[in-house]
Amino acid sequence: MIKFTEKAPYSPVEYVYDVEDILYKGKSQFQEIMVIKNPHFGKMLILDEVVQITERDEFFYHEMLTHVALHAHPDPKKVIVIGGGDGGIVREVLKHKTIEKIYFVEIDEEVINVSRKFFPTVSSGVDDPRVEIKVMDGADFVKKAKAADIDAVIIDSTDIIGFARSLFTAEFFTAVRDCLSEGGMFVTHTESLHFHKDMVIELQEALKVIFPVVDLYTASIATYPGNWWVFAIASKGPSPREVRQPFQIETKYYSDEIHMQSFMPRGMYDRLMQRKLMW
Amino acid sequence: MIKFTEKAPYSPVEYVYDVEDILYKGKSQFQEIMVIKNPHFGKMLILDEVVQITERDEFFYHEMLTHVALHAHPDPKKVIVIGGGDGGIVREVLKHKTIEKIYFVEIDEEVINVSRKFFPTVSSGVDDPRVEIKVMDGADFVKKAKAADIDAVIIDSTDIIGFARSLFTAEFFTAVRDCLSEGGMFVTHTESLHFHKDMVIELQEALKVIFPVVDLYTASIATYPGNWWVFAIASKGPSPREVRQPFQIETKYYSDEIHMQSFMPRGMYDRLMQRKLMW
Repeated sequence: MIKFTEKAPYSPVEYVYDVEDILYKGKSQFQEIMVIKNPHFGKMLILDEVVQITERDEFFYHEMLTHVALHAHPDPKKVIVIGGGDGGIVREVLKHKTIEKIYFVEIDEEVINVSRKFFPTVSSGVDDPRVEIKVMDGADFVKKAKAADIDAVIIDSTDIIGFARSLFTAEFFTAVRDCLSEGGMFVTHTESLHFHKDMVIELQEALKVIFPVVDLYTASIATYPGNWWVFAIASKGPSPREVRQPFQIETKYYSDEIHMQSFMPRGMYDRLMQRKLMW
Repeated sequence: MIKFTEKAPYSPVEYVYDVEDILYKGKSQFQEIMVIKNPHFGKMLILDEVVQITERDEFFYHEMLTHVALHAHPDPKKVIVIGGGDGGIVREVLKHKTIEKIYFVEIDEEVINVSRKFFPTVSSGVDDPRVEIKVMDGADFVKKAKAADIDAVIIDSTDIIGFARSLFTAEFFTAVRDCLSEGGMFVTHTESLHFHKDMVIELQEALKVIFPVVDLYTASIATYPGNWWVFAIASKGPSPREVRQPFQIETKYYSDEIHMQSFMPRGMYDRLMQRKLMW
């Protein structure tokens, strides 16, 4: 069997996948894009040798990155999605009937095109009339956004290296805060609590400088090294732990029960931030 | 760098570790035993090419397999530990001041010996006067145990194949139930919710035939494939979700908050058992 060995940054475990077929391999202006087929996970999207999504389990990540923020908001209408060229986040946002507008900001158009072709069930929402695709740097887009206009900003970037770095700066977080409406939510992935604990803490600290409410929640993602995946979430006031709408959408994993349970217990969160969790 | 590729049963992802040094390699009557050194995880115990524990993260598994059962019990005095030759579970059980007796039943004495030598911080409790080591099949030991005498039975076996199979039969579960005292708890690991969902369900079903109360909880373990590790827990009546003692022991991960949060939300548990969770 042909094997693919992932080159994930900062992971002390290498993940190796069987390759039934290489469906696509190309180079965009920004990265190498590859689609392989694995007997268990189905089609897998790989950017610069790092697994982004698999057909089988993409919903864990997409649902959890989307629905916590959108259920903590009482009435989300306008959303900015940055990254996530596969369209998975856009698909999930569109499940909310309140949504009027999604700015879908992806720096690499090739990822959108490859996903349209190979992951139609993931990219299914990108041509919805409520979606406006912007091929550009998400940080630049947010800087120019209208003040207090957006109900949620969702970052679905690659790992926090290379060109994704512009989405993890104080300047960017300030621009996000300014474009958010009163109950608005900002959410971004933050790597693994097993392998990147310091990064998780540092991002919480950086967000606390800009936002009055900063928190985190987790989900287990089998195809991201360390699995115990962290999502950082921030707002100008309302706690993201609260579910402010009835849970009425179709999901495979997320639910209002999971929403509440996915947040780290308060005592553990405090120990984390005091750097008292030792592993 | 020398690499070790794990040969975990039923895992669709192979985990590969850097090997700084091979500290021990031998064959017991039952299995191949290996100790390697990894730059991130420190020393790692490997049985038949499957990672059992690492110095760095063993506490997640050992704490979670031990303390949920022992905190759901109001006053645990006598415990049977089956498997876990490394001694990690015994070390955790001994943290409870109420403990008077631990029957430590390991089929492979070589694992105990290798762990004494290479994992002294894990096997630290095995020579405690409250511990009685029994080198034998755990199923045989439980069958001969006194009725209603034991407060907790904890299974820390290898994967559910080969000689560990005797610990996953209706006959064994019946013997466990009979040896448990009124508030007694039975707990065993059940592989990954990502990769072995059917196995998780089948074990719950098998336990429900024997025990009136059967439940499960999870924890993320970075070095077990699929990570989202399941622990099946059963009792003759009391719910294991409840913490029945003040949380006063020293731990790195487990707490009373984690205890309650680690159980699957009721709605999700019901969907799991109805085979409605689709992944």
